[in-house]
Amino acid sequence: MNTHPNFEDYEVGYDIPAKPGMDEADIQTPCLVLDLDALERNIKKMGDYAKAHGMRHRVHGKMHKSVDVAMLQEKLGGAVGVCCQKVSEAEVFARGGIKDVMVSNQVTAPAKIDRLARMPKLGARVLCCVDDPENVANLSAAAVKHGTQIECIVEIDCGAGRCGVSSTQDVVNIAKMIDAAEGLKFAGIQAYQGAMQHMDSYSDREAKTAVAIGQVENAITGLKSVGLECDIVGGGGTGSYYFESNSNVFNELQCGSYAFMDADYGRILDKDGKRIDDGEWENALFILTTVMSHAKADKAIVDAGLKAQSVDSGLPTVYGRTDRVEYVKCSDEHGVVADPDGVLKVNDTLKLVPGHCDPTCNVHDWYVGVRGGKVETVWPVSARGKAY
Amino acid sequence: MNTHPNFEDYEVGYDIPAKPGMDEADIQTPCLVLDLDALERNIKKMGDYAKAHGMRHRVHGKMHKSVDVAMLQEKLGGAVGVCCQKVSEAEVFARGGIKDVMVSNQVTAPAKIDRLARMPKLGARVLCCVDDPENVANLSAAAVKHGTQIECIVEIDCGAGRCGVSSTQDVVNIAKMIDAAEGLKFAGIQAYQGAMQHMDSYSDREAKTAVAIGQVENAITGLKSVGLECDIVGGGGTGSYYFESNSNVFNELQCGSYAFMDADYGRILDKDGKRIDDGEWENALFILTTVMSHAKADKAIVDAGLKAQSVDSGLPTVYGRTDRVEYVKCSDEHGVVADPDGVLKVNDTLKLVPGHCDPTCNVHDWYVGVRGGKVETVWPVSARGKAY
Repeated sequence: MNTHPNFEDYEVGYDIPAKPGMDEADIQTPCLVLDLDALERNIKKMGDYAKAHGMRHRVHGKMHKSVDVAMLQEKLGGAVGVCCQKVSEAEVFARGGIKDVMVSNQVTAPAKIDRLARMPKLGARVLCCVDDPENVANLSAAAVKHGTQIECIVEIDCGAGRCGVSSTQDVVNIAKMIDAAEGLKFAGIQAYQGAMQHMDSYSDREAKTAVAIGQVENAITGLKSVGLECDIVGGGGTGSYYFESNSNVFNELQCGSYAFMDADYGRILDKDGKRIDDGEWENALFILTTVMSHAKADKAIVDAGLKAQSVDSGLPTVYGRTDRVEYVKCSDEHGVVADPDGVLKVNDTLKLVPGHCDPTCNVHDWYVGVRGGKVETVWPVSARGKAY
Repeated sequence: MNTHPNFEDYEVGYDIPAKPGMDEADIQTPCLVLDLDALERNIKKMGDYAKAHGMRHRVHGKMHKSVDVAMLQEKLGGAVGVCCQKVSEAEVFARGGIKDVMVSNQVTAPAKIDRLARMPKLGARVLCCVDDPENVANLSAAAVKHGTQIECIVEIDCGAGRCGVSSTQDVVNIAKMIDAAEGLKFAGIQAYQGAMQHMDSYSDREAKTAVAIGQVENAITGLKSVGLECDIVGGGGTGSYYFESNSNVFNELQCGSYAFMDADYGRILDKDGKRIDDGEWENALFILTTVMSHAKADKAIVDAGLKAQSVDSGLPTVYGRTDRVEYVKCSDEHGVVADPDGVLKVNDTLKLVPGHCDPTCNVHDWYVGVRGGKVETVWPVSARGKAY
């Protein structure tokens, strides 16, 4: 299954930026473009790595929010399923045919717990995180009501400073409650260190992950002492997966950004001090943008502003050029591109590498997949806007 | 006409955050909530101001991207139509029943020019900006091809540093070309000073607007000298409309943010040194968010992160509280709310005033309109994602 829409219903330029078969030059901008060759290489590479290290890979669907990309990650990268962050997002993946869906986040609102408890009826294994004893009873009641099973993993805050408990005692207490609760199954531990993934230095990231690994090891020991085994010990991102993979503690990776890459992630350094977008991963995601004004000699105004991207992690970079063209300012509807040598002209297009892929993808309705100068596919950003 | 969907087709929590008639407490979060009373007061106030000052008000639809809000601005605020920034966005307004639609931006890509030239067939007056002589011939050819008329206004860069020509000579040259071109009508001048709207100081904004007014006055004189009159002299925003209104030069305002307000705009000061969200305009737009984790005593984690807002102009503020609760950090899916006194608990809701309304609205699919604790209406963000 994929989610290709009926393109006959769509008008290019109003409903959709392009249709399969079109020349790349005819894509309406601004829009997201995927270099399918690069995407497939990234997916295969991470899949091969996980396999070689005996790790399962549960890809992070919150990055791309696309059933089609998740399917490709299962097919080419051996992914075992997806994780995502919201119930409505998880429903999109489950309805789209993904059979193993984790909400790697807390689900606490009554209406959302109810939806989560119904989700196994879509044919998927359903998991969520817990960091609050009261939450266990509510999840259990909903699963019992619907005659389903929710698998629960206890979230450890291993440095991100968001959700998750901090002590092994808290992990064990909540795990025991889950284990004893009707309709729930204790499935393991969630330990994603989100705060260090973007640290430039490999050794800084290694040191932070070592602390997380220690915490998780402790928790596993504590759980074993009360007779609880972890099916899943999950975590790891594009900036750390090698540490978790070699930890002998984690067994599931949850990488997301590796598939698309972005400017902010691309800047971090591997163990040889080389940027990770210089060999480890390829830029597969671009914002295609067009010069719409060049009324001043030294600057071009392009059509990709804040409605076409998120700049929370910095401005986009211009891809594949050796000249002095640089995206220097972003307002609602415009990007200002410095063009000191006046090399650009109106209607020229640029490929931007977004500063941060996740919230940038969430602004768009479509991915335009290109190969060899042609539009090969157009995929919906299936879970776009599914924040609740 | 409005664009209320057939709510029977929608599932609350999956397709839509709420339905009309629900209690405010049952809205699924994170989502955008409009305080309809405050919204209506803002709209009426600006409408009354414009009328009292002999100004037309062409509301900026790129802020809200909503046909319903634009209709309300026509009904309660006497708006003469909308401006917006993209052709696909303009089509949404024209298809939705707005009869006077300006793309206050350049339209240069051939496919977009073609769409623009077809748009009058939807029954709307259609206008766009021009800052490039070559563009005139292309617009003219498309209008002739479709047997329509595009009204063109020349954009002056009066300080924003984006699109627009800088000299009166350039204005006059392009205006003459428009005037001579088949299928086009010269309609006036666009002069929006976008770079100063958010300056805190009233006198700083006044000084910048004075420069713009001088430029525009010069251009009008130049145009008159070649026999060209301006039907529209448009510009002005929420931070400057009083200057343009009292200029005897401008005749159309293009305010957007006044209707919803946001945290960044709200901080700027009026002529008495008072914040503009303290009396001049009311906060009518909120991101409703829920506490989903409180595993640490001094911080609550809420469900509104970067997928629910844009933080380009700063973090959101927490509305209507006198305690020390403060939104201090935003990541993809989470907001960290400092709660030093531990007053919040899981499933409590907060109303956030977004840092920047325009790109925040563009992330969401729906506005939930509330009055007296009840959901009165749910409006689609009609032109969401219409960036091309």
